[in-house]
Amino acid sequence: MKELVYHRQLLPAAERSAERTATIDGTFRATYAEHMDRVFRLAHALSHQLGVGRTDRFAVMALNSHWYLELYHAAFLGVGVVNPLNLRLAPAELAYILRDSGTTVCFVDPTFATVIDAVRAEAGIETVVLIGDGDVPHDITIEALIAAGEPVVPAEPEEDDPVVLMYTGGTTGLPKGVLLDQRAEMLNLYHVAQMWEFDESFVFLHQTPMFHAASMGGILGIPSVGATSTFVPVFDPGAVLEAIERDQVTMTVMVPTMIGMLMAHPEFRPERLASLDILTYGASPMPAALLERILETMPDLDLYQGYGMTESSAVLTALGPDDHRAGGSRLHSAGRALYGVVLSIQDADGNALPTGQTGEVCARGGNFMREYWNNPEATEEAFHGGWYHSGDAGYLDEHAYLFLVDRVKDMIVTGGENVYSVEVENAIAAHPAVAQVAVIGIPHDVWGEAVHAVVVTRDGMEVTESEIIEHARPKIAGYKLPKSVEVRAEPLPLSGAMKVLKRELRKQYWEDAERGVN
Amino acid sequence: MKELVYHRQLLPAAERSAERTATIDGTFRATYAEHMDRVFRLAHALSHQLGVGRTDRFAVMALNSHWYLELYHAAFLGVGVVNPLNLRLAPAELAYILRDSGTTVCFVDPTFATVIDAVRAEAGIETVVLIGDGDVPHDITIEALIAAGEPVVPAEPEEDDPVVLMYTGGTTGLPKGVLLDQRAEMLNLYHVAQMWEFDESFVFLHQTPMFHAASMGGILGIPSVGATSTFVPVFDPGAVLEAIERDQVTMTVMVPTMIGMLMAHPEFRPERLASLDILTYGASPMPAALLERILETMPDLDLYQGYGMTESSAVLTALGPDDHRAGGSRLHSAGRALYGVVLSIQDADGNALPTGQTGEVCARGGNFMREYWNNPEATEEAFHGGWYHSGDAGYLDEHAYLFLVDRVKDMIVTGGENVYSVEVENAIAAHPAVAQVAVIGIPHDVWGEAVHAVVVTRDGMEVTESEIIEHARPKIAGYKLPKSVEVRAEPLPLSGAMKVLKRELRKQYWEDAERGVN
Repeated sequence: MKELVYHRQLLPAAERSAERTATIDGTFRATYAEHMDRVFRLAHALSHQLGVGRTDRFAVMALNSHWYLELYHAAFLGVGVVNPLNLRLAPAELAYILRDSGTTVCFVDPTFATVIDAVRAEAGIETVVLIGDGDVPHDITIEALIAAGEPVVPAEPEEDDPVVLMYTGGTTGLPKGVLLDQRAEMLNLYHVAQMWEFDESFVFLHQTPMFHAASMGGILGIPSVGATSTFVPVFDPGAVLEAIERDQVTMTVMVPTMIGMLMAHPEFRPERLASLDILTYGASPMPAALLERILETMPDLDLYQGYGMTESSAVLTALGPDDHRAGGSRLHSAGRALYGVVLSIQDADGNALPTGQTGEVCARGGNFMREYWNNPEATEEAFHGGWYHSGDAGYLDEHAYLFLVDRVKDMIVTGGENVYSVEVENAIAAHPAVAQVAVIGIPHDVWGEAVHAVVVTRDGMEVTESEIIEHARPKIAGYKLPKSVEVRAEPLPLSGAMKVLKRELRKQYWEDAERGVN
Repeated sequence: MKELVYHRQLLPAAERSAERTATIDGTFRATYAEHMDRVFRLAHALSHQLGVGRTDRFAVMALNSHWYLELYHAAFLGVGVVNPLNLRLAPAELAYILRDSGTTVCFVDPTFATVIDAVRAEAGIETVVLIGDGDVPHDITIEALIAAGEPVVPAEPEEDDPVVLMYTGGTTGLPKGVLLDQRAEMLNLYHVAQMWEFDESFVFLHQTPMFHAASMGGILGIPSVGATSTFVPVFDPGAVLEAIERDQVTMTVMVPTMIGMLMAHPEFRPERLASLDILTYGASPMPAALLERILETMPDLDLYQGYGMTESSAVLTALGPDDHRAGGSRLHSAGRALYGVVLSIQDADGNALPTGQTGEVCARGGNFMREYWNNPEATEEAFHGGWYHSGDAGYLDEHAYLFLVDRVKDMIVTGGENVYSVEVENAIAAHPAVAQVAVIGIPHDVWGEAVHAVVVTRDGMEVTESEIIEHARPKIAGYKLPKSVEVRAEPLPLSGAMKVLKRELRKQYWEDAERGVN
């Protein structure tokens, strides 16, 4: 039985849960019967009215909403390949991606309608579909499509049908299209199911942007067991607190930056998160001080860390609640490979390194992308030697726990010594006046690179460069200490996925664009 | 990445665990480095010396041992298809299976050497390989093969390469060969990994016979994470108690009959099982009284029930420790579908039945066999309508917990009423004098079939027919009460997989062989 098709999992779950709530989005609510009716109609209209064929791409540029989930589901039922767009893209990048993907249909919500309109001609978009209502230029609305479509179950897709084309962050050179097929997504779901033990009683809040791989576990997993999805349009700490309370959210995924902002919000009180059973974090390293604050403040919360990337759609390793509660050094680990994933730490020549030695984190697994779209060279480079090369530096301990040291590209080489910025950031983040910190390498005549810290202070607090350095001194080796510290009140620049854009911080120091990657 | 090949999981795990213990078998011990060296040599000799090609079958008829695991691993590395033989087979069945499978090489241990010798010519066996030592007729020993083979890693198999050909019990008509490929076994392992959360610290005791599907989780799963396997040659309560204590076993799989025998053993004390963290049971229904006894006696044990069949290799649903501790009616459930498995309860016409209604348990999932070997009619029948038809009767509750009512074939129809034998057995099993009970239908002039109980008394205890009936009366409806009870001291006849052979019990009552199935 060729069962690695989402269709096979979603349809019976939706049927079993026909009367249960599928989506809550403000005042909008749909049972699974209603949700599937909308998805079937949307899929039908996509193919019959807009002419989107089985492997044709359609783009989505929108804030989180029930419509976004419906669009993903239409693709997963075998009607087109969804191309979710990063909301921070500059017009030139956007036009590049839309042209590169060959997308001719673009769904857009009122927030981004003018952005799409500006690149529409250049990008070759034939049809713009407006999500929701709004007085903005568009050819048709998604609700009109849903009304016009027929509620028929599409023909079952094949395992190797492409289903998602997701462009990577665009923080390194030109964006690359990660092409994921049904099989890869289903194997990712097997991994997610090992981590979370899905249950139809879950109420999942989408707060990470739904264009991002970190959302895929929720997008696919939650409906596949008949559980409930709820949404905030865009991350906002106050709105998240309200949504969790109002919808009695049991589970969510956040990136560390979001958690920090949530806990720093003036209206944050742990009781407001009482319904929350599971908090999964990932996408970037968690500062040790923040993790300890979460564990102290909400001891009953089951914490999971997931590590993965768009190319693996997404999760490769997980650190579970038991490991979090046990504390100690494992708190700083990304956990162990989920069953079906194999990790290998390799040196620059592709040799496997022994336990405890730091090298590039490489992985294999059935959940990896098929290819970078239209980019065989990049595909070959990513998978050379039969392993996916993550670009992350890390090591495995004797119990096969993965410790991520840094992005290989974020490693600072100062006087011939490797300094991993995360280590320096952890040493600084524990200072009571520090709200955010990012450590980068900047040019230095003697050492090649020098360690430089950018520190954002907490509201109303002050700190000096030397206080920061003295605070870090007992924690890390002398050569890892920042040579210079910028103290500022304005927040760090963030990517669409809420990762700190180190590239932006580096820009003023480096003229060479090659070095200025993130 | 086409990763659904056991090779990909085993090799890195074995490498990572090179110095850890792979197998303990009496005085024999092998690290993973040693185990893999043996397996590579064995695989090499199988193909180069005995001419077993990639899809050629080789049979094994042996008690549990480290050699059995090595033979499975040789097949899983892509050298031949292992055909494990049920140890209770009559010579005619054995000859049939060996001919049907086209096996020309048979591995046999001293216990079964004469059995194989007797059918060798008729079955077309060209080479008999003796497992272990012993002064019995053979062409070569497995140790000689291992010594002669070269320790080279075989070429990686393909996902759809067949790897196991396992004949079903043979209790219904002619045995059917269940052909399982790499992909099905790997997807089964994904299911097993969801259930157990494998860990390299596990010490797994093989006590269910290794020819049986119930052993597959341990055979494949334990080495795939670098954990330790240990063995008793054949189930014996005293030997199991000793093995658990001696090897500090943390995990094992048993069928309910075995657990009952273990706990009834004069030297059973719960402290002797102190190292045991996880006990998984399955393969036949657990009498309620026995389950309650286990929960009372060993409250710290994590109990799992797995439900599946050879055709699904093996696990479809699981009931976990939390459900066991919560108690109540879920104790009598087989649990919920593992992620990737879809269940459907169907009537005789293939219509899906609603929640709560009893029908045939049907399932889909990537872990199912490819086909019954050489038997397209049986394959078509088993999968008609796109679902695997289990032959088990059951229903799903509103939380999707599966309740198995009985084998469809074990249902007794008396006066037009359906009686499920398990229900009657549960009502009788709680009587203090009852060690074992089996309920069957026997011919009755008025009712068509009458409910008949066969009761085995505990050592030194006595009970009468009317005491049994009066004990059951408050528990079940009148038409379900046995019309007759046979009280006896001798144990019930058991199949090779330790299931009660109801066919044997029925034989004396039914002349019509068609009805006398199990």
